[in-house]
Order: sequence, then structure tokens, then C-alpha cells
Amino acid sequence: MFKKILIANRGEIALRVIRTCKEMGIKTVAVYSTADADSLHVRFADEAVCIGPPPSNLSYLKMSNIIAAAEITNADAIHPGYGFLSENAKFSKICEEHGIKFIGASAEMIEKMGDKATAKATMEAAGVPCVPGSKGILESFEDAKKVAKKIGYPVMMKATAGGGGKGMRAIWKEEELLKAWESARQEAAAAFGNDGMYMEKLIEEPRHIEIQVVGDSFGKACHLSERDCSVQRRHQKLTEETPSPFMTPELRDAMGEAAVKAAEYIKYEGAGTVEFLVDKHRNFYFMEMNTRIQVEHPITEQVVDYDLIREQILVAAGVPISGKNYYPQLHSIECRINAEDPYNDFRPSPGKITVLHAPGGHGVRLDTHVYAGYTIPPNYDSMIAKLITTAQTREEAINKMKRALDEFVIEGIKTTIPFHRQLMDEPDYVAGNYTTKFMESFKMNEV
Amino acid sequence: MFKKILIANRGEIALRVIRTCKEMGIKTVAVYSTADADSLHVRFADEAVCIGPPPSNLSYLKMSNIIAAAEITNADAIHPGYGFLSENAKFSKICEEHGIKFIGASAEMIEKMGDKATAKATMEAAGVPCVPGSKGILESFEDAKKVAKKIGYPVMMKATAGGGGKGMRAIWKEEELLKAWESARQEAAAAFGNDGMYMEKLIEEPRHIEIQVVGDSFGKACHLSERDCSVQRRHQKLTEETPSPFMTPELRDAMGEAAVKAAEYIKYEGAGTVEFLVDKHRNFYFMEMNTRIQVEHPITEQVVDYDLIREQILVAAGVPISGKNYYPQLHSIECRINAEDPYNDFRPSPGKITVLHAPGGHGVRLDTHVYAGYTIPPNYDSMIAKLITTAQTREEAINKMKRALDEFVIEGIKTTIPFHRQLMDEPDYVAGNYTTKFMESFKMNEV
Repeated sequence: MFKKILIANRGEIALRVIRTCKEMGIKTVAVYSTADADSLHVRFADEAVCIGPPPSNLSYLKMSNIIAAAEITNADAIHPGYGFLSENAKFSKICEEHGIKFIGASAEMIEKMGDKATAKATMEAAGVPCVPGSKGILESFEDAKKVAKKIGYPVMMKATAGGGGKGMRAIWKEEELLKAWESARQEAAAAFGNDGMYMEKLIEEPRHIEIQVVGDSFGKACHLSERDCSVQRRHQKLTEETPSPFMTPELRDAMGEAAVKAAEYIKYEGAGTVEFLVDKHRNFYFMEMNTRIQVEHPITEQVVDYDLIREQILVAAGVPISGKNYYPQLHSIECRINAEDPYNDFRPSPGKITVLHAPGGHGVRLDTHVYAGYTIPPNYDSMIAKLITTAQTREEAINKMKRALDEFVIEGIKTTIPFHRQLMDEPDYVAGNYTTKFMESFKMNEV
Repeated sequence: MFKKILIANRGEIALRVIRTCKEMGIKTVAVYSTADADSLHVRFADEAVCIGPPPSNLSYLKMSNIIAAAEITNADAIHPGYGFLSENAKFSKICEEHGIKFIGASAEMIEKMGDKATAKATMEAAGVPCVPGSKGILESFEDAKKVAKKIGYPVMMKATAGGGGKGMRAIWKEEELLKAWESARQEAAAAFGNDGMYMEKLIEEPRHIEIQVVGDSFGKACHLSERDCSVQRRHQKLTEETPSPFMTPELRDAMGEAAVKAAEYIKYEGAGTVEFLVDKHRNFYFMEMNTRIQVEHPITEQVVDYDLIREQILVAAGVPISGKNYYPQLHSIECRINAEDPYNDFRPSPGKITVLHAPGGHGVRLDTHVYAGYTIPPNYDSMIAKLITTAQTREEAINKMKRALDEFVIEGIKTTIPFHRQLMDEPDYVAGNYTTKFMESFKMNEV
């Protein structure tokens, strides 16, 4: 087993990893930027090394400084957390070259799954369902017609140079195709000087549902069921839950099997997440694989009684997994508490926390690196806490979240607590009736 | 279902009950003494009524004031928590007379189980093992010899008027009996003017192991396995755990069955605890039954995924229990954090909490009514928080407790945190090798 792990991250995830290391009897090294000297991850680690000033490219992304910190402190492994260098193939390789175990994916795996096109090709080869579409650019209108027929309506036509919805058309039947083809190409030509088009199946009422997997160094993988992360704002997840209210046992088995297939195909080692889009007919399509721990991992831990960070460390140390899959025994919800003002377009609200009172009691878990008197630096992600409630049923987990949010006091800054509190009362959320489009029509109530 | 519950208690248990009521959509009324105006239970309840000044007989024990508070606020039920009026037959009866549901045992049940002698007779009639002994006072030395032979050595001879160990003798074999009989009687006569003696089986290396039961209004009861509360100081529990490190599946079944038998015999309704002494041979003997929720109930909740307060309320509202028993799926430990100085004979240390930082993360639960800036009044019990950790194994739960205790910051007062932190490293505790005598030889390390 590792004797000392350096955590190449900050904030709650650094603290999360330190906690499990302590529980396993492994010494820890925190690294921190000058902006983070007062963070709890620095205080709770056995050692701490300053690795530079903000912004991140001068500290948390500065590989040479992190490797130096590991060497100075004799750390024999590095846990990268999420974000920063967690999916950086070069960093994974550099760690390996320095004889430091990278607790994450190998450079090769990161490369295979990091690039969307490569990942999709790999997954198709593994037999994992991907969004069907044209092989690259459509050659002609006839080609478009043929592809659309093959993948089935509705389809999306997209400009290859596109972005921001320009040159993009949803087509529901063949009669609409010609008009869409012509207008989309004109629009793309005007906007990007490139009228190249490709086509994909349109995912109706899409949900973001991901499967947690763990693979070991013996080529074996298992899954720990799903997390529904469809409540997103500009592709940022706001709240997650497991089980998904949209899930069926059959779909869970099929998605779980696909995710394990994906992980075993690339001989994935460690904790990873296979993200899928699920349409209203419960067809699911591979979106991407994250070769690291996710922000929302605690809800899985809560419903399967499993410490994912511990498992990451064990697997990295060469311990085999049992191979059995894990199914949710309870219901768990996570609310990401961000230092943002939900009444002002979620604008970041860094500053000093003057008062903090954490909720507690039965079924409440709080993961946070902040405390009363702590000043949130403006340099980083605005997430300051993850509030997680767990109960026998979804309804109870929601009710528990309401009372926990009501108890949570943070003064001195604005937070997303009022957003989550309102969300927990939204009829569509309460009914489990939400897709990735949910937040497009969400408005904060007036205070 | 009840519309509004008045909580006739203070501190963490009042807050605990309020939390579950909120989650169930039931309105709450807090009552408080003038010394408790700033407690969180007052802040988090929907309504709060001041019921008088300290000491408790002028407020928390003043039945007329509590009933008046319930009537003024239209509460349809009263939850008594633990202590105070929770096992007061008269109060239970008065509630009934006022048409207010008492969420606890009926006056009749409390009377049956409240008095030790009556409880023992009831349990013997129910077929629950009790400590064997003489029927009342021994008539003669010959009688003593006969009884000792019947119940088997070792035995304890005790002065009927006794206390403080005076007139008490442990006797390991018949040869020792005469001398003990004579000297104990002399001692008792000198100390109490009464040389009456009775005899009980000596419980070797006793452990305090209790079984949680829940009974419904249809005469059905179930058990939720055990809690080991052997770590006690002057009969005050300090830390509890489940499963007991001394337990075997056979013993659990036998004790669980006995506890259910006890509950069903008296048609027990609500959550209750049957306390046993278990000797080194794993014989178990009925000690007493607590007809209320226990301080240490959370560890049971953690390992069986069950909300005991919710269940109390449901059962009181006439909902039947499923009838199945619950077995620990995980390991959970509770440390009672008291405002006491463990370096100064656990002397109470009331006062103002200047800084409070709560531990958190995976497997950590904290139940507390205090916060930074709160002043602990000198009038009540010194318990200010219950820290509970839960993990797959006992070793992991201990390691989690260590790191949670290390994270826990309370400044301004002395607390028992250092005691628990040391306890978690004591070889005998870590080995699960402890009895109710454990604390007699415990000493705090020098700082």
C-alpha cells in the first residue's frame, strides 16, 4: 500500500481524498496556491507545499512544481481529484516516468477517451451504442436523405464548423429535409464560410444519465449503477440523484452492461464514469467517458455503501475488485452549493464567509472545504460545498434536502441554496419529470 | 397523521425530532426554558413557547405548562424525547386525558417497566432471562447455601439496605460462603442498622448490550439488533457501537427473540430498548427496559437504514410495523461529545462556544443543537453533540471516528473530544475487549 499520497488538487475534493487517506492510514501531502493558503485541505493534510500563485497554469496545472513537491516530500502516489490534471495524459505519463503512481487512468486510456471522435470510434468497436449519424460530412442531398432514412427520423443536421446553434436543423420527416438542407447550408456558409454538414440522430427529450464503473489492473470491471445529472445549466450540473427517476431495472442492466463492456474493452483501471444520453424511448447513447472521479460521486457512495476514493487507491495499489455490480439500496440527492447569486444570473459571489452553520442529523452528508471566516478566492470554480441527503425513497430524500437546505446558514456571500430550495418544490422536479432542457425554462421566484 | 407535534424536550433530541417532523410534513412546536432561548431547537421549530425558567421542575418537568403550550398551539401530539417526562406515567396519562397523543408508552406500560422489581417480575413471567437470585431476603446461612447452589457460583451477596459497595461480597465457591455471610452482615448492620441480605448470580466480565425494539398498536413487535454500551463512566454511557464486538449471530438471535418476547408480552407500543447484561460466557440477563427513544439510537439507524423517530410517529399514529427484524449491514460508532474536561475528572465546562467547525464527509453524521456563538447553560446535561461514524467494518468506523474527531473544532469550552480520540487508540477498545469495568482503569494521557 502507498505510504504517502500527494493530492494535486484543491477545495472539497482535495479534502475528500485526504479524509479517506487518513482513514486508510496513508500520509498526505496537500499542494496549494498562494490564494488557497487558508483552505481546509491545507490544514488537514500531514504536509503542505505551496506550488505557486493563481491562476492555475502557474500552480495547480504546473506539472513540474507538482512533481517537485511529490519528490521533496517522498510521496509515492499522486491523486489528481477532478479537473486540473486529472485527465491529462502527459501528466499521467510524467508521473509514471518519475516512479510516482498516478491514481487515475494511464496516458494511453486518457488519450483513447479524451478526444470525442476517438472515444466514439473506440466505443463503436467495443459494441457500445453511440449516437448514429453520417460518417463525417454529407456528400450531397441524396446522401443526407439516405443517412436520415438509415438512422431514422427525427435527425439533427449540424454544420461541421458550427457552434451556437447556427447551421443546425431538427428534421422530423423526409418532406422537411430539402428545405432544411438548403437553408442550413446557406446559414453555415454565411456564418462560417463553410457549408459542410453532418447528421446525427436527434435525441428526443434527452437525459444525462451516467454509469459509475470501477476497473482493476487485471482487466476486470464492475458498475455501481447510475446517476441522473440532467439538471444542468449551460452544461454545468447543478444537482444529481440516484437512482434516476427515469430508470427501469432493464435499462439499468443494459446501460450497466454497456458501461462495463466499455471499461473492459479499454482495460480501464480505476474509477470512471461512462456518460450516456437517454431519449424518451429509453434508447441510450454513449456521450463520453470521464477517466477520473466525478464531483457527484458521493450519491453513489451513499446508496451502495462504498467508498469510491478508497477503491481508487486500492485498485491503483494493485488490489483486484470483487467483480460484482452494485445496485442502489436507497435514494440519494446532491445539491452543489456554489458561491453564486441565483437571483442575478448565477453570477459568481466570492468573498468572506462571515457565518456558517452546517446542517446535520439523519441522512445528511456535507462535503466542504470552507468554514466561518474563510475567504473564497475569486480565482477558481465557485463550488463551495456539496450537500447530500439519503433516504429510503426519493420523496423522503427530497424532503430531507428541503429541511437540510433550510438549516444551512452561509452569510457574507451569495449562494445557490435558494435555487436548490426552490428546485425541490418545482412540480416537474418533484415528479422526476426533467430533461437536460429543464433549466432553460426555470426562473427564480421573486423574493 | 398528526398535524402538529409539540416536542417536550430541549437540545439535540428536540432538534432531532423536529428534523424528522419537517421531513414528514408535520408542523412542530418547541418549548424552551428562559435558559434555552438561543438553542437551535427553538429556531428550527415552526412555533416556540417559553415554559418557564430553569431548573427543570419549573419548565421541562412542569406538566401543566407543557400541556398549556400544546393546547394554545393546537398540537395534536407530544414527543417527549428522552429524560424529563419521557418515562413519566402521570404525564402520559395527562396527555391522554387532554386528547393529546403521547408519542411514547402508555401509563400502564411505563408503570410496568419503570419499577425494577415489577419489571423483573413481568419479564420472568414473559420468559425473559433475568439475573437469578434469592426471592427477597435470605432467611439463614442454610438458605444462602441452598440459593447459591441453585443459581451456581460465583454469586454476589448484597445488603438489602445497601449502597456504595457496603455489605457486598463476591463469592466464588462454597468454602468462602460462611465467612462472607458473617462479615457482610456485620458490615451491613454497622453501616445501615439492617443486616438483611439477598443474593444474585455474579455477572462475570459484564457487558451492557441492549436490543432496540419497535412495537405497534396491534401487539406486534420487531427488533433492530443490538447496541453495545459497555463503555460507561459512573453508569453514564460515553460511546456506543453496533454491532457489538462481542456478539455472535446466535446470541443476537437469542437476545433479539427475548427482547421481542418482552415487548409483545406487555403489548409495547413505540420504540423501546431492552437492556441486558451479558457475561463472559455469553449468558444474558434482563436489566431494564427503557420505554422511550435512547440517546444512542442513531447508530442503529445508520446500520439498518431506518429512521427511528419517524417510526415512533408512524406507530403512534396507528400504522402497523412490517414485523420483520433488522440486522446490522454496516458498523457504526457514536461518541457523546460533552462539555466536560476529561483532564479534570470530567468536570462540566459550560460557557460560550467561540469557534465551531463540524467534521463532515463520507460516513460522518453529527447531531447537535449548538453552534458558534452559542452559550451552553450550566443548568442541564452536558452533552452538546453526538458524533457518529459508519463504515463497512469496525476498523474502518474507528479510523473514520479518529479523523472526524481530529477535524472537530470546538473552542471556548472544554469537551470530551480528547477523551474519545484517546479511546479510539486504546488497545483494549480497538480489540473490542471491554466490559462495563473498562473505565475504572482508564486514564487520560498527559498532554
